[in-house]
Amino acid sequence: MSFSLESIAQRIGGELDGPSGLEICGVAGLEDACEGELSFLARSRYRPQLHSTRASAVILKRGEEFSGPSIRVDDPYLSFLQAIELFARPVVEIFEPGIHPSAVVHTTAKLGAGVRVGPFVSVGAECEIGDDCIIGAGCVLMRGVKLAAGCLIYPRVTIREECVLGARVIVQPGAVIGSDGFGFAKRDGRYRKIPQIGNVVLEDDVEVGANTCIDRATTGRTVIAAGAKLDNLVQIAHNVRVGEHTVISAQSGISGSSKIGRHVVLAGQVGVSGHIEIGDAVQIGGKSGISGNVAEGSVISGIPARDHREWRRLNAHYGRLGRYANEIAQMRERIARLERMRDAETTENA
Amino acid sequence: MSFSLESIAQRIGGELDGPSGLEICGVAGLEDACEGELSFLARSRYRPQLHSTRASAVILKRGEEFSGPSIRVDDPYLSFLQAIELFARPVVEIFEPGIHPSAVVHTTAKLGAGVRVGPFVSVGAECEIGDDCIIGAGCVLMRGVKLAAGCLIYPRVTIREECVLGARVIVQPGAVIGSDGFGFAKRDGRYRKIPQIGNVVLEDDVEVGANTCIDRATTGRTVIAAGAKLDNLVQIAHNVRVGEHTVISAQSGISGSSKIGRHVVLAGQVGVSGHIEIGDAVQIGGKSGISGNVAEGSVISGIPARDHREWRRLNAHYGRLGRYANEIAQMRERIARLERMRDAETTENA
Amino acid sequence: MSFSLESIAQRIGGELDGPSGLEICGVAGLEDACEGELSFLARSRYRPQLHSTRASAVILKRGEEFSGPSIRVDDPYLSFLQAIELFARPVVEIFEPGIHPSAVVHTTAKLGAGVRVGPFVSVGAECEIGDDCIIGAGCVLMRGVKLAAGCLIYPRVTIREECVLGARVIVQPGAVIGSDGFGFAKRDGRYRKIPQIGNVVLEDDVEVGANTCIDRATTGRTVIAAGAKLDNLVQIAHNVRVGEHTVISAQSGISGSSKIGRHVVLAGQVGVSGHIEIGDAVQIGGKSGISGNVAEGSVISGIPARDHREWRRLNAHYGRLGRYANEIAQMRERIARLERMRDAETTENA
Repeated sequence: MSFSLESIAQRIGGELDGPSGLEICGVAGLEDACEGELSFLARSRYRPQLHSTRASAVILKRGEEFSGPSIRVDDPYLSFLQAIELFARPVVEIFEPGIHPSAVVHTTAKLGAGVRVGPFVSVGAECEIGDDCIIGAGCVLMRGVKLAAGCLIYPRVTIREECVLGARVIVQPGAVIGSDGFGFAKRDGRYRKIPQIGNVVLEDDVEVGANTCIDRATTGRTVIAAGAKLDNLVQIAHNVRVGEHTVISAQSGISGSSKIGRHVVLAGQVGVSGHIEIGDAVQIGGKSGISGNVAEGSVISGIPARDHREWRRLNAHYGRLGRYANEIAQMRERIARLERMRDAETTENA
Repeated sequence: MSFSLESIAQRIGGELDGPSGLEICGVAGLEDACEGELSFLARSRYRPQLHSTRASAVILKRGEEFSGPSIRVDDPYLSFLQAIELFARPVVEIFEPGIHPSAVVHTTAKLGAGVRVGPFVSVGAECEIGDDCIIGAGCVLMRGVKLAAGCLIYPRVTIREECVLGARVIVQPGAVIGSDGFGFAKRDGRYRKIPQIGNVVLEDDVEVGANTCIDRATTGRTVIAAGAKLDNLVQIAHNVRVGEHTVISAQSGISGSSKIGRHVVLAGQVGVSGHIEIGDAVQIGGKSGISGNVAEGSVISGIPARDHREWRRLNAHYGRLGRYANEIAQMRERIARLERMRDAETTENA
Repeated sequence: MSFSLESIAQRIGGELDGPSGLEICGVAGLEDACEGELSFLARSRYRPQLHSTRASAVILKRGEEFSGPSIRVDDPYLSFLQAIELFARPVVEIFEPGIHPSAVVHTTAKLGAGVRVGPFVSVGAECEIGDDCIIGAGCVLMRGVKLAAGCLIYPRVTIREECVLGARVIVQPGAVIGSDGFGFAKRDGRYRKIPQIGNVVLEDDVEVGANTCIDRATTGRTVIAAGAKLDNLVQIAHNVRVGEHTVISAQSGISGSSKIGRHVVLAGQVGVSGHIEIGDAVQIGGKSGISGNVAEGSVISGIPARDHREWRRLNAHYGRLGRYANEIAQMRERIARLERMRDAETTENA
C-alpha cells in the first residue's frame, strides 16, 4: 500500500511543499520512521528529531522552518491521525469471514447478516448478534447476550448472561463483561453471597480495554453510556453508571453504585469510592482517590482529591516541611531569648 | 417468576402494610424500579427517591413515613437481600448439564457425579473434579488440579498444575490461579528465573474475582483460607497467606510471603509490601500502602499507612499548610521587630 | 524424585555437615517443610523457626549455630534457589508433545521442530513459530505473529496481529500482547478512534506476567527489551519502551510513549505518566507516581516522586504536623504577650 505525497496532502487537506510524486509507503514517529515513510512534528520538544529523522516527508505546522519535503497544515497531530487512517488495514481483513466450524452456537441464538465468528467461540442460548458483528477466537457469550450491529469483540472476551451491547461497541482481548458484583452480607462472622441478578449495558460506541472488568448490577443495570472509552485493566463495580463520552484511563477503579458524569476524564490508577457522584466535565489527575461528590467542571488531584491548583500549592509546601520545621525551632529559641531578657529586665526593674 | 407481596413479607419475616395479593415480578433500587417491582430504602440520603419511585412496593424500616404498599422490617438492606434471593435464577440453569462434546478431558482425570463441563474446556492429566462442580466454557485446568465438591468456575479461568480448590469455591471469569511467582536471581546484571515449584490452595467457600491473579508458591503453598473473598483484578504474590473470612477489594495487591490475618478488610487499590504480617480484624482504607507489620484490630489508612483517625487529622493539617507557612512568615517578622526594639533599647541603655 | 544430602551439597557447592546418605525428597521454607525436606535460613528474623522446623536438613551460612544436618554455604538464599532447580519438574513434562488435534493452525502458518500446541489454540495466517516453542491451551495468535525459538506461552494468552516475540520469551496465562493503544481524537465532543497500526516487540528472554496488557504502538513499535521482566496485571501503553533487564512489579502502569531505561526496578502499583524518560538503573518505590523525567541512578518514592531519603524525611515531618501546628499556636501567644509587654513599657516610658 502506498500513496503519492501529493495525494496524501489532498486527502488530509494540507499544502504540499516538495515533490508531488514522492511515494509514501507508511507513517511513523520522527525517531522510528524509515525511508519512504511520512512523519510529523507536533510538540516543540521533538524538534531536534526533525533534522535527524529518516522519514522521507514530514507533516508540519505552516511556518515551521524545514527544507525537506513536507505537508503544511494547521494541526500536525490531527493531520497525522488522518494520514494513519489512510494506511490502516480494515479490521475485517484481520478476521476470517463466516462462522468458524469449531464455534459452538446454540440453536436458539440469532446471528445477523455478515457476522464473523472465530474458532472456539461459544454463543449461548437466546443470544442475538447484530449484523456485521465480529466475534474473535475463544470468546464466550453466555445465554441471552445481545449485541447490536457492528460490534467488534476481540479474542478471549467473556460476556456473561443477559448483558447488552449497543452498536459499534469494541471490546479488547480478555475483558470480562458481567462478572458478579462484589456483594456479601456478613452474618455470624461469615460472608454470604448476595445474588447479582442485574446485568451490564454498554451503549453505542463504547470501547472497553484489554482485561478490563465490568461487574453486573445487584439488581438493575451497570451502565457505560454512549461513546465512553475505558482503557485496560479498569474495574467497574456493580450498579455504577459511567456517563456519555467519559474517558477512564488504565488501572482506574469505580466502586459500587457511583455515578460518573458525561465528558469526564480520569487519568490512570484513579480510585473512586462507592455511592458518590462525579459531575459532568470533571477532570481527575492520575492516582487520585475520590471519596466524596465532585461538582461539575472540577479539576482535581490527590488522595483525598482536592482542587488541582490547591493540590500543587500544598505539594510545594510539603516539599518545604524541613525548612518550616527548622524555622519553628529557630523561632522557639529566639522567643525564649526575648522572654529571658524580658524576665531579667523585669527582675532588674523590680 | 412472581410472588405475592404477602408471600414475600412472610419469607423475609416482615410485616405487610398493603394489599396482600399485589403481584411482585422483580426487585430493584428506588431509581431503577419499574411498576410491578419491589424496592427498598436503607440510606436516608435516598429518601427523596421514595416519593418518585415507580416501584409497586417498598421494604422500609418500621416507623418510616410512607403511604404506599410496603413491608416493614428492622433492617431494610438485609431484608432486600433476602428478597433478591427469591428472584435469583439458580446458577445451574445457566450452564448446560453434562460434559460438552468439544471438551478435552484427559483419560486419567476423574470427574464426580453431576459435573458440568462447558465447550472448549481442557482438563489435564490426573485432575480430580468433585461432585456437582461447574466448569465454564474455555477454562483450562492443567495437570493434577483438584477441585472439591460444588465449585463454580466461570468461563475462561486458568488453573495451573497441582493447584487445589476446596468445596464451593467460586472463580469469576478470566482469573488465573497458579501463575509463576515473580522470582528471579540477579547474576552478572541478568535475571535468572527461579523455578516456582509450589502451588496455590483455595480453601472452602473462597471467591476469586474476574481477572484476579494468584501466584503459585516458590516452594510450599500460597493459601487463601476458608471463606475469604477476593474482588476483581487483585494480585496475590507467591507464598502469601490470606486468612479466613478476609475481604480484599478490587485492584489491591499483596507482595510475596506476606501473611494477612482473619476477618481483615482491605478496601480498593491497597498495596501490601512483602514479608510482613497483618493481624486479625485489621481494616485498611482505600489506596493505602502498608510497608510494616500491623497489629490486630488496627484501622489504618494512607501511604505509608497510619492509624485512620491520625491519618484524618494529619490530612486536615496538610490542607492548612499554606496558612501555617503564612503564620511562620508573619511570626518571623514580629520576632525580628521585637529583637530590633530590644537591641535599640539595649544600645540606648548602654 | 529424591537426592542424597551429599549429592545436593556437591551440586550447590556447599559443605556437608550431617549424614551423607540422608535422602531428601523436596525443598521448602522452614515453617512449611515436612520430614524428608531440605530448608534454608537466609533472614535472621526467621532464626526461631530453625529450631521448630520439621525439615530433615537446612542450608545455613557457615558459622551459624545448629546441631542438625545441614549444608554450609556463603549465601543460603542463592544456594536454596539452586536446590529448587534440582527439584523443579521440566516444563516440557507439563505440556503434551505435538499439535493437539483440536488446534486450528492456518495453512500458511509455519511451525518449527518440536513445537507443542495445546487444545483449542488458534494460530492465524502467516504466523511463524520457532523451534521448541510451547503454546498452551486456549491461546490465540492472530495473523502474522512471529515467535523465535524456545518461547513458553502459557494457556489463554492473546497475541494480536503482527506482534513479534524473541527467543525464550515466557508469557503467563491471560496476558494480552498487542491490544489497541488508547488513542482517540476528540471532535465535536465525541471521541474518534485513532487506528493503532504499529505492533509490540518482546525481545529475547522477556517474561510477561499473568493478565498483563501490552498495547500495540499507534505507529512503529512498543518495545520490551531483552531480559526485562513484567509481573502480573501490569499495563504498558502504546509506544512505550522498557529497557534491557528492567523489572516492573505487579499492577504498575506506564503511559504512552514513555521510555524506561535499562536495569530499572519499579516496585508494585507505580504509575508513570506519558512522554517522559526514566534513566538507567533508577529504583522506584511502591505506589509512586512519576510525572517528570528521572535521572540515571535515582532512587525515588512518593506522589509525585522525590529522592527516596528526602521522601522519608518529609514523611517524618508530615507525621509531626500536629505538633508543629501546636507550636505555631503557642509561639503566636508568646509573641503577642511579648508585644503587649513591649507596648505597655513603651507607653509607660512615653
